[in-house]
Amino acid sequence: STINLAVIPGDGIGPEVIAEALKVLEKAVAAEGVDLQQTHYKLGAEHWLATGETLPDEVLADLRTRDAILFGAVGAAPGDTRIPSGIIEREMLLKLRFSLDHYVNLRPSRLYGTVGSPLANPGVIDFIVVREGTEGPYVGNGGVLRAGTPHEVATEVSLNTAHGVERVVRDAFRRASARERKHVTLVHKHNVLVYAGHLWKRTVEAVAQEFPEVTHDYLHVDAATIFMVTDPSRFDVIVTDNLFGDILTDLAAAITGGIGLAASGNINMDRTAPSMFEPVHGSAPDIAGQQKADPTAAILSAALLLDHLGYTAAARKIEAAVVADVETRDGGARSTSAVGDAIAAAL
Amino acid sequence: STINLAVIPGDGIGPEVIAEALKVLEKAVAAEGVDLQQTHYKLGAEHWLATGETLPDEVLADLRTRDAILFGAVGAAPGDTRIPSGIIEREMLLKLRFSLDHYVNLRPSRLYGTVGSPLANPGVIDFIVVREGTEGPYVGNGGVLRAGTPHEVATEVSLNTAHGVERVVRDAFRRASARERKHVTLVHKHNVLVYAGHLWKRTVEAVAQEFPEVTHDYLHVDAATIFMVTDPSRFDVIVTDNLFGDILTDLAAAITGGIGLAASGNINMDRTAPSMFEPVHGSAPDIAGQQKADPTAAILSAALLLDHLGYTAAARKIEAAVVADVETRDGGARSTSAVGDAIAAAL
Ligand SMILES: CC(C)[C@H](C(=O)O)[C@@H](O)C(=O)O
Ligand SMILES: CC(C)[C@H](C(=O)O)[C@@H](O)C(=O)O
Repeated sequence: STINLAVIPGDGIGPEVIAEALKVLEKAVAAEGVDLQQTHYKLGAEHWLATGETLPDEVLADLRTRDAILFGAVGAAPGDTRIPSGIIEREMLLKLRFSLDHYVNLRPSRLYGTVGSPLANPGVIDFIVVREGTEGPYVGNGGVLRAGTPHEVATEVSLNTAHGVERVVRDAFRRASARERKHVTLVHKHNVLVYAGHLWKRTVEAVAQEFPEVTHDYLHVDAATIFMVTDPSRFDVIVTDNLFGDILTDLAAAITGGIGLAASGNINMDRTAPSMFEPVHGSAPDIAGQQKADPTAAILSAALLLDHLGYTAAARKIEAAVVADVETRDGGARSTSAVGDAIAAAL
Repeated sequence: STINLAVIPGDGIGPEVIAEALKVLEKAVAAEGVDLQQTHYKLGAEHWLATGETLPDEVLADLRTRDAILFGAVGAAPGDTRIPSGIIEREMLLKLRFSLDHYVNLRPSRLYGTVGSPLANPGVIDFIVVREGTEGPYVGNGGVLRAGTPHEVATEVSLNTAHGVERVVRDAFRRASARERKHVTLVHKHNVLVYAGHLWKRTVEAVAQEFPEVTHDYLHVDAATIFMVTDPSRFDVIVTDNLFGDILTDLAAAITGGIGLAASGNINMDRTAPSMFEPVHGSAPDIAGQQKADPTAAILSAALLLDHLGYTAAARKIEAAVVADVETRDGGARSTSAVGDAIAAAL
């Protein structure tokens, strides 16, 4: 069989970490007799500077013909004033997530053996965050009145639909049902964000009926951040909205050894469009091109990609190779490609 | 002179911790020859159950005649279905903050001597969060269409005004200017929440001109949570919106030894209405009435209250007494009143 893969290396350290992810991915699928066909796309801040293009319709249409997308990172250096702030994020990365209906933004958090958590007593950390990916405060709905005057008013509208909330909540319960602890925690702020919060709460109560084997509880987002640093072992599956998920998953990455290890999938569970897999980290322009970036998050994202396409044995092999490598890390510096080589060799 | 104090002990552990805060407050002001006149108000979940009242207009009018408000905690037990979720929070606590124009929600974070942080290497932690308190996603603006049907749509609108943002940003710069490191960090998510984010960014740039001695930088809220656990020493003054401030200050409390120590002020800097001082923690119904609650956060809130009213010497004395007590804590259990007694004795 064949995997028809779209590759978007992006900016900064994106191309470096993607090179290692592809190295590992190629070896893993070759062992299964799978042919990996790659189409590389130039997109991101550099591409915008060169061409003024963020994500042209033809490119989006072409991406739709692929089985899955492997994504590096995009974004210019924070101080680069040539690029309007957030344009690449919104008109390219978020446009992909929304257009391709990536409603499950899946972010697993696991603390591996000896990898340094900033917590004194992290305990066993092994949970997944199922972050809604196509609505909430990320819809870009809002506006500004009397901009730049003392009477300016700026709004941001969070849009939440029964359709959007229900499908991601059901996905979270399904994933919980397949896990050992079978527990879902809804994170929101329904005591303040009443309208959206109650839709989420009611939906969780309703969907929970379909999964009698799964337990569930609720945490306000502020309390969830406390538990994230005082008792992260309590979490099994967290389901939450787009913005709370953004915040919680960076924190989750931090307590499990940093965003160098955090993988993610932007998944369309209905398979009406290709899903996209990307490390949680950004483009880190300050260390780009220096072989300093940790490719582990990109490699683990490739494993999530294989999982999604049904190559679960290959996915498990990559994860095992990563765990073996991570557990031997001693804090010494290795180049990006040396880490990729080591993980590929451990396959 | 006289302090005309409103006291709202509230629910759960509120009355216990407020009793200790008053014990310390009375002793501290007596030493300065100040007369403390107290008016106690019955408000909160218990009061609502008994009377159906959240915050009657006459009570609000009466509160306006006081110099300041000392607030315990409100809220029923999480599982108590007799109380509609969030009603006390929104119709009482948030109504007070909004009606009395508490636009500076001030939350200092300091790690004292030996008090346990969950971080392995916390370093020196000493920052304040200036959280906007009267607008943003907390305005209660939003709605629901086709509730309970598969076509439900729920919205939440974040309202941000030049007036509201500018005054709190200026307050943050003023506070930074009076501190040693003189540094302001704006936390937002302007790459996604463009309209509100740009208002905040532009306002910080503009106000920064008035404070050439203060440096400033910017962090997205997700990145801010990472630094909160990997490098909290970098923060001096954080200024942020109502919701991001809610999230960050619980996390900040957690890394500095828990919400048993986190104090806050809901401050009207224009003094057109009394300001309100409250521990960040909730009513903790599970341990209420058992003398198990830590009154330190309430006592430190009383110190913030004295600061606001201009009794800075008395405020510093309370803080010093708290530091002395906290530094000798060995994790052994003491009753709520024993902690209050010890801090009062150390004054
Ligand atoms: C780059 C940004 C738009 C993005 C987000 O907010 O979703 C990132 O922080 C992430 O978590 O993938
Ligand atoms: C109780 C709740 C409404 C409140 C808030 O969200 O502001 C609390 O979490 C706080 O931080 O004071």
